[in-house]
Amino acid sequence: MIILKYPLILASKSPRRQQLLRDAGMEFTIQTIPIKESYPKDLEVSQVPVYLARKKAEALMPLAKDKIIISADTIVALGPRILGKPGSQEEAQRMLQDLSAKSHMVYSGVCIAINKELTTFVEATEVTFKNLQQSEIDYYVQHYAPLDKAGAYGIQEWIGLIGIDKISGSYFNVVGLPVCRLYTTLRDLDLISL
Amino acid sequence: MIILKYPLILASKSPRRQQLLRDAGMEFTIQTIPIKESYPKDLEVSQVPVYLARKKAEALMPLAKDKIIISADTIVALGPRILGKPGSQEEAQRMLQDLSAKSHMVYSGVCIAINKELTTFVEATEVTFKNLQQSEIDYYVQHYAPLDKAGAYGIQEWIGLIGIDKISGSYFNVVGLPVCRLYTTLRDLDLISL
Repeated sequence: MIILKYPLILASKSPRRQQLLRDAGMEFTIQTIPIKESYPKDLEVSQVPVYLARKKAEALMPLAKDKIIISADTIVALGPRILGKPGSQEEAQRMLQDLSAKSHMVYSGVCIAINKELTTFVEATEVTFKNLQQSEIDYYVQHYAPLDKAGAYGIQEWIGLIGIDKISGSYFNVVGLPVCRLYTTLRDLDLISL
Repeated sequence: MIILKYPLILASKSPRRQQLLRDAGMEFTIQTIPIKESYPKDLEVSQVPVYLARKKAEALMPLAKDKIIISADTIVALGPRILGKPGSQEEAQRMLQDLSAKSHMVYSGVCIAINKELTTFVEATEVTFKNLQQSEIDYYVQHYAPLDKAGAYGIQEWIGLIGIDKISGSYFNVVGLPVCRLYTTLRDLDLISL
């Protein structure tokens, strides 16, 4: 296990983020405070997840003296348009039709907070879907869980396996946590060691 | 589950390939025949895994009438040099030092055989390691299993999580099976349907 300077709190309920942080060798507890996921309308798309990650960390800071807080937010952007979690199976189908045969961007914003010090960064990955057939979209929406995922897909699920031609950037960033950049940042901040 | 025209045999003992094929929704049995993993010295690096995948499928063909055989081989290439499985912890450390702060290529060759028809392809992914510290290499080699992996690393393991900056191409190709290309090829050959 990696040696932590302070106890670590992961401010995320996502089982995928929890698994990635465990696989990176870190021990942590989970604590979240619900925030309003709103952001200034003039914010650049890539800055939205940083803004939201910061909000999530700031909500926890008064409760976490001498603890490292890690929070994150991931968005899917098709050009200037942010694709959130679909509200229905029909909306999930429309999102996947929109993503088909195109490249889109996945941005994860991360905030590391320790006492009053905040460090944030955003990591970008380009993801390219092949031309998805309607039968493939239907199969995925019927048999899997697109509703809890931004952009209506999980890269580690069936549609990611059979439908994603290529990515450019960090794979784990698309899963939900840019582990390499996070590890390096924690190390450079002198918060972890081997 | 995906509908298969014929029963499917995966000619690979790799638990990672088996998991990926299961996640892609295919049912299969596992059958392998050991082959000599030699190839003509004048073969282009990217063609080596195709050559070996073909050999693996051909060895099984007499035993697999009316069955689909899928075989695969994955290599790690640093320029013209093929990195195989390291023979010792020291060799693993040297390989990771060589890969550090550079991009390398991962090629997976796949062979699909049904009766006497063979289809092959190769998929290429570029993988970039950040500058690995000696302590990180030591930690990985001591705590994980680099010896059974070409190039001495698994992208889904600790060193992949904290050490791989970016990839360009298919992630699952680096894990060991280019699932998207495989699925599309099987579909175009009319061997699977939804």
